[in-house]
Amino acid sequence: MDPSFPPPGRDFSARLHERIRDTGSRVCLGIDPRPETSPLTHPERLGRDRQRVADAVADAYEGVLREASPYLACCKPQAAFFEALGPEGQGALARVMAAARELELPVILDAKRGDIGSTAEAYARAYLTDGPLSADALTVNPYAGLDTLEPFVEAAEADGRGLFVLVKTSNPGGADLQDLRVEGGLSVHEVLAERLAARADTLHAGEGGYTVLGAVVGATHPETLTTLRRRMPRSVFLVPGVGAQGAGPDDVIGAFDEDGLGAVVSASRSLFDREARSVEALARYAGEAARRLASGIDDALDRRA
Amino acid sequence: MDPSFPPPGRDFSARLHERIRDTGSRVCLGIDPRPETSPLTHPERLGRDRQRVADAVADAYEGVLREASPYLACCKPQAAFFEALGPEGQGALARVMAAARELELPVILDAKRGDIGSTAEAYARAYLTDGPLSADALTVNPYAGLDTLEPFVEAAEADGRGLFVLVKTSNPGGADLQDLRVEGGLSVHEVLAERLAARADTLHAGEGGYTVLGAVVGATHPETLTTLRRRMPRSVFLVPGVGAQGAGPDDVIGAFDEDGLGAVVSASRSLFDREARSVEALARYAGEAARRLASGIDDALDRRA
Repeated sequence: MDPSFPPPGRDFSARLHERIRDTGSRVCLGIDPRPETSPLTHPERLGRDRQRVADAVADAYEGVLREASPYLACCKPQAAFFEALGPEGQGALARVMAAARELELPVILDAKRGDIGSTAEAYARAYLTDGPLSADALTVNPYAGLDTLEPFVEAAEADGRGLFVLVKTSNPGGADLQDLRVEGGLSVHEVLAERLAARADTLHAGEGGYTVLGAVVGATHPETLTTLRRRMPRSVFLVPGVGAQGAGPDDVIGAFDEDGLGAVVSASRSLFDREARSVEALARYAGEAARRLASGIDDALDRRA
Repeated sequence: MDPSFPPPGRDFSARLHERIRDTGSRVCLGIDPRPETSPLTHPERLGRDRQRVADAVADAYEGVLREASPYLACCKPQAAFFEALGPEGQGALARVMAAARELELPVILDAKRGDIGSTAEAYARAYLTDGPLSADALTVNPYAGLDTLEPFVEAAEADGRGLFVLVKTSNPGGADLQDLRVEGGLSVHEVLAERLAARADTLHAGEGGYTVLGAVVGATHPETLTTLRRRMPRSVFLVPGVGAQGAGPDDVIGAFDEDGLGAVVSASRSLFDREARSVEALARYAGEAARRLASGIDDALDRRA
């Protein structure tokens, strides 16, 4: 236990919903640092020095979070892009997460972790218990089986964190395994959804009936969002695929419950200004784009109502 | 490109097989640092200082690799346990990987990464291109679809690395999704195996017909090993589950081809002496246990012949 990283306390879904109500935003800022796509972090400009690149990435996203957080429900650092920075990337990730924590902005670490037994426990310890890399919620991969999710469920329930299980992805190949028809007529991802829903029925349910057991469902399948929303009433949805991946606000409304809650929509490239020549400019752009996306989702929900 | 980390060059499977022939060992040393399980790395003893714990872990495994490498085909650091050490863990992982590289011991980084599009590319960049965390091979998770494996295939083929796709895991819950019966009668993991085999058919095949596209198949299912060996003739198998997870040498021989090649068997806890009070003692134990396991597998293969 490190006293400088207090456990978040209240239920993750309750904190997320409170934040959605406070900000009016259901937008999750995807943090996907690609140093070579911005003059602020370009490796050439920084002498290909890994520490300087990692520091520049952290500086940039600290600025973005400060400016954009009033328009955000949460943020989602993508572990892969920090890992691609080398060992120094973990320090940058810790700094970005600390900045979010200070702004009381929930952090979903998008790491898609998954492994068996004590290895899953190690991942849960790395990201769902107190420490410099601890997140409010973690994305996990279910292929190894439902038992491998239990260490994450346990860690999440212990002090008000959450997890998001990869159910249906937004890429074309997402169908390869996830959409295989199983004997009985359901698809693999529907079987998974049913089992997760059964597990969620046995977990502590907070306001709105939501549990720690969330799901990742791509935005490029609007009808799937609606079906899965019905199948998994106790799971908050994390919905990627809006913006650069082609989906718009109208494609995601199926993810939300009747109260317009129960989901967040993540976007990263569409909130990122590749031309920005200062952290201030980058941050202003992100804030403005997040505000627009949040109000686009709001309008789409109004049209549904 | 960092000139201090040259690409490995020749085909990963060729290097692995050469090493099996040179050492007579098909053992892959699993590197799963659990600091609290050894007096050498116990956090209490090291003042709960993350940097000191990470350094002690790296010291311990550098010693183990030096002593045990004559009895090893390769080694397999488990990313989860390094990530659980905090940001400092990545430095320890880089040190352990550098030590293996110096000993010309192939490194399979067991990270079970998997994600879509440019995120998969970032993981491939992190672990399958030159840099302090670059491995000879990486384990990956296929749930997001076959297209998400392509950035790994491309990176692996570019300079003689490999990948191991999670096909069948050794845990009880491994059946939940992997063994679902699909219309047509195959299980999900068999469909996956067939698709991977079809993809492997289009890849460069080295000696023995093996490609960059390997598979992870748990040792706790001996009959599955035999079936999958037949279905995936161009894939090297990484077989975990021996030792602490309950399988023995006779359970794994189905993973090998007629020449006794095409697979490595990983073990970690059974090669680790929790009581060792010096790095030398830890290293001696690991070397001796690896030698015994290697000869146990050899004997089991002889009995089959």
